[in-house]
Amino acid sequence: MSEQWRDLVKEKKLRQQAAIPEAWIISPPPSSRLNVLELPEETGLLTPREVEITESHVEDLLPKLASGAWSAVDVTGAFSKRAIIAHQVVNCLTEIFIEQALQRAAVLDEYLSKTGKVVGPLHGLPISLKDQLAMKGFETVMGYVSWIGKYSEVDAALVEILVAQGAVPFVRTNVPQTLMWPETFNNVFGRTLNPHNRSLTPGGSSGGEGALIGMRGSALGVGSDIGGSIRIPSLFNGLYGLRPSYGRVPYRGAANSMEGQDSLPSVLGPLSTSLGGIKIFMKAVIDGKPWKKDPLAVNKPWDESSFALKEHNNGHQLVFGIMWNDGNVVPHPPVLRALEITRNALIEAGHKVVDWIPYKHKEIIINARAIWASGSQEDYVSITSLTGEPLIHTMSLEQDPLAPPSFRLTAAPKTAFQLWQLHKEKRNYRQEYLDHWEATVAQMGTGRCIDAIIAPGAPYAAPPHGKNYSADFTMIWNALDYPAMVLPVVKVDATLDKVRPPHQFLSEEDKTNYESYNPETFTDAPVGIQIVGRTCEEEALIAISEIADAAIKSFLTK
Amino acid sequence: MSEQWRDLVKEKKLRQQAAIPEAWIISPPPSSRLNVLELPEETGLLTPREVEITESHVEDLLPKLASGAWSAVDVTGAFSKRAIIAHQVVNCLTEIFIEQALQRAAVLDEYLSKTGKVVGPLHGLPISLKDQLAMKGFETVMGYVSWIGKYSEVDAALVEILVAQGAVPFVRTNVPQTLMWPETFNNVFGRTLNPHNRSLTPGGSSGGEGALIGMRGSALGVGSDIGGSIRIPSLFNGLYGLRPSYGRVPYRGAANSMEGQDSLPSVLGPLSTSLGGIKIFMKAVIDGKPWKKDPLAVNKPWDESSFALKEHNNGHQLVFGIMWNDGNVVPHPPVLRALEITRNALIEAGHKVVDWIPYKHKEIIINARAIWASGSQEDYVSITSLTGEPLIHTMSLEQDPLAPPSFRLTAAPKTAFQLWQLHKEKRNYRQEYLDHWEATVAQMGTGRCIDAIIAPGAPYAAPPHGKNYSADFTMIWNALDYPAMVLPVVKVDATLDKVRPPHQFLSEEDKTNYESYNPETFTDAPVGIQIVGRTCEEEALIAISEIADAAIKSFLTK
Repeated sequence: MSEQWRDLVKEKKLRQQAAIPEAWIISPPPSSRLNVLELPEETGLLTPREVEITESHVEDLLPKLASGAWSAVDVTGAFSKRAIIAHQVVNCLTEIFIEQALQRAAVLDEYLSKTGKVVGPLHGLPISLKDQLAMKGFETVMGYVSWIGKYSEVDAALVEILVAQGAVPFVRTNVPQTLMWPETFNNVFGRTLNPHNRSLTPGGSSGGEGALIGMRGSALGVGSDIGGSIRIPSLFNGLYGLRPSYGRVPYRGAANSMEGQDSLPSVLGPLSTSLGGIKIFMKAVIDGKPWKKDPLAVNKPWDESSFALKEHNNGHQLVFGIMWNDGNVVPHPPVLRALEITRNALIEAGHKVVDWIPYKHKEIIINARAIWASGSQEDYVSITSLTGEPLIHTMSLEQDPLAPPSFRLTAAPKTAFQLWQLHKEKRNYRQEYLDHWEATVAQMGTGRCIDAIIAPGAPYAAPPHGKNYSADFTMIWNALDYPAMVLPVVKVDATLDKVRPPHQFLSEEDKTNYESYNPETFTDAPVGIQIVGRTCEEEALIAISEIADAAIKSFLTK
Repeated sequence: MSEQWRDLVKEKKLRQQAAIPEAWIISPPPSSRLNVLELPEETGLLTPREVEITESHVEDLLPKLASGAWSAVDVTGAFSKRAIIAHQVVNCLTEIFIEQALQRAAVLDEYLSKTGKVVGPLHGLPISLKDQLAMKGFETVMGYVSWIGKYSEVDAALVEILVAQGAVPFVRTNVPQTLMWPETFNNVFGRTLNPHNRSLTPGGSSGGEGALIGMRGSALGVGSDIGGSIRIPSLFNGLYGLRPSYGRVPYRGAANSMEGQDSLPSVLGPLSTSLGGIKIFMKAVIDGKPWKKDPLAVNKPWDESSFALKEHNNGHQLVFGIMWNDGNVVPHPPVLRALEITRNALIEAGHKVVDWIPYKHKEIIINARAIWASGSQEDYVSITSLTGEPLIHTMSLEQDPLAPPSFRLTAAPKTAFQLWQLHKEKRNYRQEYLDHWEATVAQMGTGRCIDAIIAPGAPYAAPPHGKNYSADFTMIWNALDYPAMVLPVVKVDATLDKVRPPHQFLSEEDKTNYESYNPETFTDAPVGIQIVGRTCEEEALIAISEIADAAIKSFLTK
C-alpha cells in the first residue's frame, strides 16, 4: 500500500502548526511530568486576569461579558492562549482559528457597546467544538487522513445556533479514527493525553474536548456520544458532561462516523467545568428551535415546569436508585467510594436512596454492538481506502499492525432484514426496561417511581492508554435513550482507595478488572458518577443533577 | 404446496360467524346494488334512537354519555348492530366481541350512576380498531392465515390508554395481507368493499375502518399509516383521518408488518366521521402519557398554545400553500374541484392561498420504497411460509397466480450498509424539504413561512378494486414525517366533474391516470383533500384543519 497518506498528514500538521501564535509556543515539560494541570499558570504566559478568566465557569463569565466588565476579545484571547498551551502538553486540538474568533469577538464587543444589548444568551462565550462540528470554509478531518482537505460549505446547524446565541467558536478538538473508541488517537493528529496524568487516557471519543476543558483551555465544549463519548472524557477529566436524548440537540451538518446508521445514533451535547455551563448550553440550543433547521431534531421547547421538577415533588425528598455494578463488572474502589459519597450526601440532604437492580445490561450491550457492527466495517473501509491510511487496530501505545483487530473490525456485515430483527430485540429491551423503571412506583410509597438513577460511568478512573476496554456503563443509556449526566466527585486517593479484598466475581471481565486495579496507576485521576433520567426529560435531569451536585459538594466540604 | 391453510381459514370464518348475533343477520342485497349507505336504516333493525345515536359525531356522543342521557350500553349496542349490518354488505370486520363490549359498557354505566363521574374523556364511546391492535385473550390475525390462533397476552399500549380513558372497543377491522397495499384483501377475511359504491375499493390498508365508519358502524376508529393507510380509506369513504408524526401515538404491542423496520415506520392514528372525533382522540391519547408505556412514544404533552395557533397568527389570515399536482401526476377532475373549492373557501374566509411547488417528490418516494424493500420480501415470506398460504400478487378481482408480482414482492434484499446509504439520502431530502418550507418566509410578508400545505390525497377518488396503483400523494408526507389530515369535501358529480381536455402530461403515469377517468366509474365516490403540517405539531394542524373545514362547509352551503 502506498504511503502517500503520510505526506498528507505532514502537510496538514504544518498548517496546524502555522495557526499557533509564535508568542504562545512553550518549551515542553519532560514527558516524565504526568500532571500538567498547573502548567499553564507556570508558563507565565497568562496574566493574572487571564488566569481569573479561564478559571471562571460559564455562569460567571456570561454576566461579566454581558455587562462589559470583561470584553469578548479579552475572554476569547485568554481561553485561546490557555488552549494553545494545553495543546502543547496534551495534544488536544485539531483546527485552530483564533484569529477569526477574535475578529468575531470584536464584532460582539462593538455591538454591545453600541446597542447596550447582548446578541444572545451566550454573548461572547468562547466555545470549543469536537472535530465533527463543520464550519463554513474550514476542513473537517475527524481523525481521517482521507478527509484532509475536506472543506465545509456550510456551518453545522448546532454551530449556526450557538453563533446566533452569541458564542465564539475558537478551536476544534481531537477524536479517535472512526469515533468508535473510548480513547483518542488517529493517524492525522496522533494521541491526546490526560492532563491530570499524561500516562492515562483522557477517554474518547470526545477526548480532545475532555483534555482541553480539563486544563481550562475552554469552559464549555461540544462533544458527541454514541456509547459514552461525551461522558467518558467528562469522567476522566473531572468535568460535567451530558448525553442528551436522541434529537434534542441538532446533528445536521456535523460530520459523523457510520452516517445513515439511525438505529442507535450518536448525539451532540456539552462538556463543561460546571453544571451551570451544561444548563446554559442546553437552554440556549433548545431556545434556538433546532427543529426549524434539522428535521431530525425533536420539536420540544425548553420545559420550565420540568426544570422546576413539578413531576418530581418539586425536588424535595427525591428517591434515587443507586446501581453499584451492572451485573457484570464491579467498579474499582475509587468509583465505589464516589458512589458511597453520593449516596451519603443525598441521604444527608433529605433524599432517599434505594438499590437499583440492573436489567439485562449485558444483553442490551450485545444488541447495541451488533447493530453498529451490521455495517461499520464497510463504512470505515469506504473512507480509509480513499488514501490507504491504515485502519487503527488498537488504542495501545504500541501500534502493532499484526495485533489482532478489535471487534470493531471483525464484525460480519448483516442484511437489512437481519438488522430489523436486532431492532425488534432492541425495542423489546427498551420496553422491558421502561416497565422495570415504572414498576418502582409500587415500592416507593411516594406515588412516583424513582426520580433518577445514580450509576458508575465506568468501572475505573481514567486508565492507562490502550486500557479503556469497556464502555458498557455508558453505552447502556444510549441503547435505552435515557439522558445521562456525569458529575465529578473526587480524585483517586491512595490512602482511601486501597485494593479491596476480592469479591465473588460476576464474570471473567470482572476478575480482569479487579486485578487491573492499584491506586498508583491511577494517581491524580478524577472520579465521577452518572445520573440518569427519562427520555427527553433533560430539564428534569439537569435540575436533579443540581440537587445532587450541591449535596455532594456540601458533604465533601464538611 | 399443501392447501391445509384453507382449513384454518374455514375454521376461523366459522368462529367469526358465530360471534354475530343471529337477530342481526340480514338478507343481503343483490351485488348489483352499489351504494349501500342507506341500507342499515332500510333493514328496519335499527330503532329511530339507534339511528340517531349512530349518526351522531364523537363530540355529540360524549356529552350525552357523560350526562347519562344515553347509556354506554345503548350507544355500544347501537353501533354494534350497525357495524354488523355494515359487515354483511361490505365485509369490513375481523374480530367481533360485542358481548364483552356490552359488559364493559354496563360497568361504565354503573360507575357513572354510582359516582356521578366519568371514567375519562372517552367515557362509554365505542371504538373500532384496525386488526393490528392486539387485545389480551383475542387473536390478532392481521390478514395472515399464519396468524390464525395467535392469541395476545396483553393489550396494545394504545388500547390500554383508550380503555383507561373510558372507550369501549367492540370490533376489529379488515386489512390487506402484509398491510403494504392501499386496498383491503387477504386470504383469511377476503375483500372489503366501499359502501358508497361497492364496485370501488375502500382503500387500505385501514380499509375495514374506512368502510365501517363510512357506514356509521363506528364514529371513531384506529388505523395505521405507513404510506397513506389511514388517509386513503378516509378519502375514499368521505371521512376525517389523521396521520400523526412518528411516535405521537404509541405503537407498543400492536401487531405490524415488517417489524423492526424503523427507518420509515408506520404510525397509529384516528379515522372519524368528524374533526371533533380526531381532536378528542389525539388529546385523550396524549393526555394518557404514552411515553410512560412505550419507549418509542414522543415525550411531548398536549400543547394548548400550539392548538391556539400562537405561532400561526392566532389562526387569523393564515397562509396556505396549495399543491395542484406532485410534479408527476395531475389528479382527476373531482380532486381538482375539491382543491379549487378549498382554495376559494379559504380566500373567502380571509386567508391567503399561494401555490406550493412540490420538491423532489418522485425521488423521495423512490427512496422510501427502496427502504421498505430492503427487507420486506424476507419478512412476508417468513410469515406466509409458516402455513404455505400464498403471497398475494395483486389487489385485482382476478387473483391470477401467474400474474407478474407487484414491486412489493420482487425487491432484492439489501445489506445493512446499503440501507444506511438510503438513510443518508432520506435525511438529505428531509433537510432540503424543511429548508424549502422555511424559505417561504421570504415571500409571505407575514414574518412566518406558510402555515400549512393543501394537497391532493390521491390522484383520483376511490377507484375500482385493483386499480389503486399509487399512494405517492400520501406517502410523501410519511417520508418527511409531516402530520397530514384528510378532510372530506364533495362527492364525484358527473355534471361538474366532466373529463377535462388533455394537458401536457408530466409522465407516462400521468397519461395513464388521465385516461383512466370517466365520471361514471366513480359514481358516488367521496372526494377530499389533505392538509399538511409540521412534524410533531398535531395540535396546530388540527386547529388549522378546523378553520379550513369550517370555511369549506360554509362555502358549500351558500
